[in-house]
Amino acid sequence: MIVETVTIGTELLLGQIVNTNATRIGEKLADAGFDHYHQTVVGDNLERMVDAITRAVGRAGAVIVTGGIGPTKDDVTRQALQAVAGVEMRYSEAYESELRRRWEARGRVMPESNLRQAEYPEGAEMIPNPKGSAPGLRLGIGDAWVFALPGVPAEMLPMMDAEVIPFLQDMSGDPAAVVVSRLIRSWGLSESRVGELLGDLFDQYDNPTVAFLASSGEIKVRLTAKAVDVETAASLVAPVEAEVRLRLGSHVFGSDDETIERVIEGLLEAEGWTIATAESATGGLIAARLTSVPGASAWFRGSVVAYHEDVKRSLLAVPGDVIEAEGIVSEATAVAMAQGAAKALGADVGVAVTGSAGPEPQEREVGTMIVAVHTPEGTRARTMLLPGDRERVRTYTTTAALQLTRLALQGSWWKGDSQSLWGVGPGAGR
Amino acid sequence: MIVETVTIGTELLLGQIVNTNATRIGEKLADAGFDHYHQTVVGDNLERMVDAITRAVGRAGAVIVTGGIGPTKDDVTRQALQAVAGVEMRYSEAYESELRRRWEARGRVMPESNLRQAEYPEGAEMIPNPKGSAPGLRLGIGDAWVFALPGVPAEMLPMMDAEVIPFLQDMSGDPAAVVVSRLIRSWGLSESRVGELLGDLFDQYDNPTVAFLASSGEIKVRLTAKAVDVETAASLVAPVEAEVRLRLGSHVFGSDDETIERVIEGLLEAEGWTIATAESATGGLIAARLTSVPGASAWFRGSVVAYHEDVKRSLLAVPGDVIEAEGIVSEATAVAMAQGAAKALGADVGVAVTGSAGPEPQEREVGTMIVAVHTPEGTRARTMLLPGDRERVRTYTTTAALQLTRLALQGSWWKGDSQSLWGVGPGAGR
Repeated sequence: MIVETVTIGTELLLGQIVNTNATRIGEKLADAGFDHYHQTVVGDNLERMVDAITRAVGRAGAVIVTGGIGPTKDDVTRQALQAVAGVEMRYSEAYESELRRRWEARGRVMPESNLRQAEYPEGAEMIPNPKGSAPGLRLGIGDAWVFALPGVPAEMLPMMDAEVIPFLQDMSGDPAAVVVSRLIRSWGLSESRVGELLGDLFDQYDNPTVAFLASSGEIKVRLTAKAVDVETAASLVAPVEAEVRLRLGSHVFGSDDETIERVIEGLLEAEGWTIATAESATGGLIAARLTSVPGASAWFRGSVVAYHEDVKRSLLAVPGDVIEAEGIVSEATAVAMAQGAAKALGADVGVAVTGSAGPEPQEREVGTMIVAVHTPEGTRARTMLLPGDRERVRTYTTTAALQLTRLALQGSWWKGDSQSLWGVGPGAGR
Repeated sequence: MIVETVTIGTELLLGQIVNTNATRIGEKLADAGFDHYHQTVVGDNLERMVDAITRAVGRAGAVIVTGGIGPTKDDVTRQALQAVAGVEMRYSEAYESELRRRWEARGRVMPESNLRQAEYPEGAEMIPNPKGSAPGLRLGIGDAWVFALPGVPAEMLPMMDAEVIPFLQDMSGDPAAVVVSRLIRSWGLSESRVGELLGDLFDQYDNPTVAFLASSGEIKVRLTAKAVDVETAASLVAPVEAEVRLRLGSHVFGSDDETIERVIEGLLEAEGWTIATAESATGGLIAARLTSVPGASAWFRGSVVAYHEDVKRSLLAVPGDVIEAEGIVSEATAVAMAQGAAKALGADVGVAVTGSAGPEPQEREVGTMIVAVHTPEGTRARTMLLPGDRERVRTYTTTAALQLTRLALQGSWWKGDSQSLWGVGPGAGR
């Protein structure tokens, strides 16, 4: 089944917010095996909404409209559906009671504007919205099902999962509707190098499809197979996955939801080790990534963000003569910081970053970033030279530090050039 | 002039990457005073690209197409423009030489596939791409100007600024083309409360327009005026800005690019103070936000991410009897952490966070987060109860900690309820 999305919101067109709704819906449609060929964004303008929805209804088996169903008068998605379907507007007394009950339960007086949310085009079913007051709508128009969902992601996404996707799966009746998707995660090769290594697989396979994308230095390869049942789809994915893993070798660090943080957690738990970080230029980003893992307190001890030289000396016990002889942005200082973090924070493993993130150079050229990793088996450091502005340098260094930690825990170390950290070669287009 | 965007990329439809290009282009068009009514996303499919561009050309004075101009064979934007314009494809020997020169300068052999980038539809001008190898294109089709730009943001955005926007400004010849925009930043009120306070301004004004948006707990109000010159536009904005500031009162903390980090920097510099943080549940996010400011080393000393209780005791010198009597998730512990951070890191101001971010509760209900701020003038703490998952709780707490730091530095303190941190009231739609 072809599904199309129409995202409503003047703030999207003005660039005030990023259209993550379209992204997340696209991801859910892909995972469920639906085809998604068009996304349209229009503002809170009835005429353009009617035009966009009419066009989508003519092309797709289902249309998902987000936004414009709130209580304010610029919310006109209900009116747009009514116009496209050519039906009357109805009013749900039952939903009015429900709305009044909710507000009373909070001890608050309901603004009367909320009653707009009890209106619906004739023939539409209301879709429950457990996280908010605006119900969704489902309405058959011509040969298409049209869904109207809230624009607030925390309300819309659960409604997609609970109502829209299951309904469409029932309706589509596609015997090959089972989809198995595999994400293979790698680091340390440029996007163009991955393209060279895997290019023939793109042409050779269409089930599973092979796609790859780069983000913050990681390259992810996604294999997606469709089949009549899970076993068949999985058996289509397996040989291609094996081939991808063979070609990318030790650059592969995980699959599916095994993020680098999760992989590090697994490696630490296998050894019974704890970890601590000492950060300068990354300013806490490595600690923030590690502590994004629920349950990190079992293996993450803490971090010292040593921005000022005094802090490196006092809390991390970096010897003054090392700093004087080698400088702050040096492998010797990074090594002392990693060892100092492990000691000061009572951890087995210490990860340290020092560098010159810009915009003004500190001792060395802007983009010079050094990572050191100390484990009970030894300490190593690595100097990188990264292009880009301060924020990109910090982000890529954070990923590099986590990846070098993984390699150190696995007893290996990365030998590529800095360019491969970027995932971008000289001729990269998109 | 009406400008429309067509973003090309199957990875956008599959939800593999977020369409930030459309957002950034929308922002630039709004800032330049162009109307932007439609955004369309289609995959790397010639037929659908031709259809989308044809439709856009029929509605707009200019169409900006991003993506699909790279060297690989799924890059077919040139072919789409050729088809829409109904012209022949030409080949630039000059650009071929330029491409060969660039690759030779890097000492690398150019894959012949790169020569696709020397092709152009008859009548098109090439637009220089200083950051990459795929040149942009500008072609008049019917009454519209069509631009093809790379999909890589780091290449596309400078081309928008240097070539596309200035060209369109010259072409539009709109006497009211000067736009003055003002962003007023606030924190501590819910989105629905801001809506109540400012609702009549939305209806009353259309020049400047009044819009607001919530992100990570901050509410931003944007005023945008169009006029024949900057002075006139600014004079339209000024009285509305004064009214907004009057109504939102001390919740306003800055305007335009004065982020909360910048505001804190200014307050610290005015006092000649330095700052340090002690973070538990936020795991380094506060330090990372502060160090995102270039030049933060002048006033940011460092941070102790004290995840384990031992670290709170050892590096931050939180007294064991405080932890035993009050617990780790307590205002007393937060106060001791803030004071300990200032002392251990040699700073005048200490900011501390402790709490129960989930998914498992730690001592207190999940979402219980405590912020303490110590300054030379005193120490205060505040307990909040935040809904949402671990990542949202961490993000909102980080913003709250920065805002409470600002209030403490200004000698005031926040008295609202936790709900206002979310920017979301019970009836919020979008």
